[in-house]
Amino acid sequence: MMNKQNTKLRSDLKEAIIASKLKNGDTISFHHAFRSGDLIINNVIATIAEMGFKNITLASSSLTDCHAPLVEYIQAGVITKIYTSGLRGRLADEISQGLMINPVEIHSHGGRVHLIQSGELKIDVAFLGAPIVDMFGNANAISGRSLCGSLGYAKIDAAYAKYTIILAEELVDYPNSPASIAQDCVDSVVLVDQLGDPSKIGGGATRMTTNPRELLIAKKTADVIEHSGYFHDGFSLQTGSGGASLAVTQFLESKMVKKNITASFGLGGITAKMVELHEKGLIKKLLDVQSFDATAAKSLACNKDHIEISANQYANPSSKGASVDLLDVVILSALEIDTKFNVNVITGSDGIIRGASGGHCDAAVGAKLAIVVAPLVRGRIPTLVPKVLNCVTMGSSIDVLVTDHGIAVNPARQDIKEHLEANGIATMTIEALQQRAELITGSPSPIKYTDRIVANIRYRDGSILDYIYQVTN
Amino acid sequence: MMNKQNTKLRSDLKEAIIASKLKNGDTISFHHAFRSGDLIINNVIATIAEMGFKNITLASSSLTDCHAPLVEYIQAGVITKIYTSGLRGRLADEISQGLMINPVEIHSHGGRVHLIQSGELKIDVAFLGAPIVDMFGNANAISGRSLCGSLGYAKIDAAYAKYTIILAEELVDYPNSPASIAQDCVDSVVLVDQLGDPSKIGGGATRMTTNPRELLIAKKTADVIEHSGYFHDGFSLQTGSGGASLAVTQFLESKMVKKNITASFGLGGITAKMVELHEKGLIKKLLDVQSFDATAAKSLACNKDHIEISANQYANPSSKGASVDLLDVVILSALEIDTKFNVNVITGSDGIIRGASGGHCDAAVGAKLAIVVAPLVRGRIPTLVPKVLNCVTMGSSIDVLVTDHGIAVNPARQDIKEHLEANGIATMTIEALQQRAELITGSPSPIKYTDRIVANIRYRDGSILDYIYQVTN
Repeated sequence: MMNKQNTKLRSDLKEAIIASKLKNGDTISFHHAFRSGDLIINNVIATIAEMGFKNITLASSSLTDCHAPLVEYIQAGVITKIYTSGLRGRLADEISQGLMINPVEIHSHGGRVHLIQSGELKIDVAFLGAPIVDMFGNANAISGRSLCGSLGYAKIDAAYAKYTIILAEELVDYPNSPASIAQDCVDSVVLVDQLGDPSKIGGGATRMTTNPRELLIAKKTADVIEHSGYFHDGFSLQTGSGGASLAVTQFLESKMVKKNITASFGLGGITAKMVELHEKGLIKKLLDVQSFDATAAKSLACNKDHIEISANQYANPSSKGASVDLLDVVILSALEIDTKFNVNVITGSDGIIRGASGGHCDAAVGAKLAIVVAPLVRGRIPTLVPKVLNCVTMGSSIDVLVTDHGIAVNPARQDIKEHLEANGIATMTIEALQQRAELITGSPSPIKYTDRIVANIRYRDGSILDYIYQVTN
Repeated sequence: MMNKQNTKLRSDLKEAIIASKLKNGDTISFHHAFRSGDLIINNVIATIAEMGFKNITLASSSLTDCHAPLVEYIQAGVITKIYTSGLRGRLADEISQGLMINPVEIHSHGGRVHLIQSGELKIDVAFLGAPIVDMFGNANAISGRSLCGSLGYAKIDAAYAKYTIILAEELVDYPNSPASIAQDCVDSVVLVDQLGDPSKIGGGATRMTTNPRELLIAKKTADVIEHSGYFHDGFSLQTGSGGASLAVTQFLESKMVKKNITASFGLGGITAKMVELHEKGLIKKLLDVQSFDATAAKSLACNKDHIEISANQYANPSSKGASVDLLDVVILSALEIDTKFNVNVITGSDGIIRGASGGHCDAAVGAKLAIVVAPLVRGRIPTLVPKVLNCVTMGSSIDVLVTDHGIAVNPARQDIKEHLEANGIATMTIEALQQRAELITGSPSPIKYTDRIVANIRYRDGSILDYIYQVTN
């Protein structure tokens, strides 16, 4: 039968927003795969503000320093509530100092999916950037100017949002494939000049370190993994993107070659280093929820065993199958860690928000061996403290802390301690390590807070694990 | 942290059923990608019967002649309600003659997804066969003994069922990829000896015809397509698997080569012939909801532009994006068609169920040019009748009927008629064609029915389009 044209292409963002029937009080969502290069969120919020919308809940899978322009839209009442994994830069500073009336909800990557599925986080309109799209909405990010690779977070928004708008740079013939986001999840397609700044998409976070202290920590960490009892053929790992984490992978590589050990899969945010190991045959498959650099994004396009997974497959605690639960080893960072092994990755030592929950608590609780790597002190500031200012990952999830001054094993994991010591790797109590930190830095003076909550730290199951209070200047 | 093993592997089907908490009155679902070779449904129902369950609703995406053993489980009250696209063989005969108290619900492939999403069809436990699986449930059917290719129907069950059990023949290392059904949709995994009889999976339905009458119809149909106004570079097509349909593709091929025309995509059930055209570069992409033969199943594994799609992406009328809506040309079969172009693909001229709704009404209403191909008479039985015994696809969706005795264009499509006649293709009124059929066969004596409804024919939007009544012997 003759029928309508079935194009979802809108002439501009405004037309798509009108078509979405967005209204005051609604929740809009975004993904953070463009990281510090993201141009979408500021652009969409400016348009929404111009159209006169107020009282919008902003749910981005994360926010970075490039989102400072949001401050004015919060002040103007356009945005009155935020869900995010992280906050950095001026936006984080202002929120820490009381910018918003409603506390920000800080969630983990897995926890975000749980909040969506449990119904707390109801997405009215999702604005999802993907460089390549067809007129029916099939979209991916494995090529194009602003290539960002995996759309693992965006997949969830597309599946659950009442209305999904794809923002893209290039229109290709139907059917575009592969479809990271498929046509049956998409309502409108809008072409824009640029989704992100490619030079910042694979930003500084994923560089290989030359810092001797980081290299020392990395070497020790690789030794810990080797002798932990979990370094066997077919083991699995998640490394993250910190300087030390990347270096661990480097050191692990030579151990894998020497012992003829191949990893079954590498998980999480995928880096060029992980791709290198995969292409050398040392990691059989890569499960990629987020491509940390252009090399990873391009690998997703050409390596058939480099597999895009959704955040639900990655880390949701109420998922029927989250890969974090199959992890052997994860290497994690910390802004602070305390003598109960509780980890803070959200606030600095001044109490100001400058980090992200990310997949930290998801992978920590899932992995058989969760290692936190951190310098014992940073400048005059101790990383290891008697009590973290804010807790994102509970100490019960952390097995080992590796610092440049020594290694501490969680007392609950005597098995690991024995493995390490049997192989000549010295460990210390975490209390002794903490005292060493305090010897170096002295005891920092306490932060002054008001009694106003600026953010709720949500555990992955949705419960409130901690509060971030407003700091006084 | 140390954690549980996270395997979903159960020692046998019974253990998986116990784990699923199946109870009397529940709905269980299956996919029909193994077609006449399916061994799963009979096996699962026998197990369920042995375990003492009663009053189960069976929702299979379709049923075939190999499911005759279900008759006894219906008689025993194990199965008391059926949702299916089709019924054939002894099961169909018995149901036509009043075997079940509750009418069978006959749905289209797209309509099934609609029934699931609208909440009428709530799947408690899905039993989904896929030859290759890992212990976390990532499954596919593109290799293995009982390879059936696309799991386009199963994807929907996996996504919506409360509990999903994968039945597989071979366990591979985690993570199995590609995952037609992904870990976050799977609760249990059971290994069985055999899912299907490979010789019957790609059965006779997809053979290339040598029947001269079918070849004549096919040649005429290819001519109709060529001169319909829709045969342009980038056109799209769905051919189905009937003898004539396959032959149409053959004739179309030479026209495409001659006119230097490439199809943008081929849709639906994919055959070896479609794969051949794809590999020759004549069809750019294949969107495969169901692989009709082993060649198609294997192509899905190796041709990157042969793409597995779900039934929601294929044909659901309430989907945000169903590919049938982008179809230019579809070739459809008919058991009966009437002078209003209404099509019956479910009951024979004796009123007995012997067919399937399939994607017939979905593709017919979606495509710009929906062609029914059929011999004018079969034996002494007219295909073209004054009024179909049962209507599956409304005449308003059908544009052209091609028979061995002539071509009729729906009066609503004067544009097509003009295109054809301008190119020397003669057409007749459908009434004239029907009279010709009646001249050949005479007027068949009417069927005797009771007033009992044995099946409801549901249109793709869920509404009841027609009833199938019990026939009297």
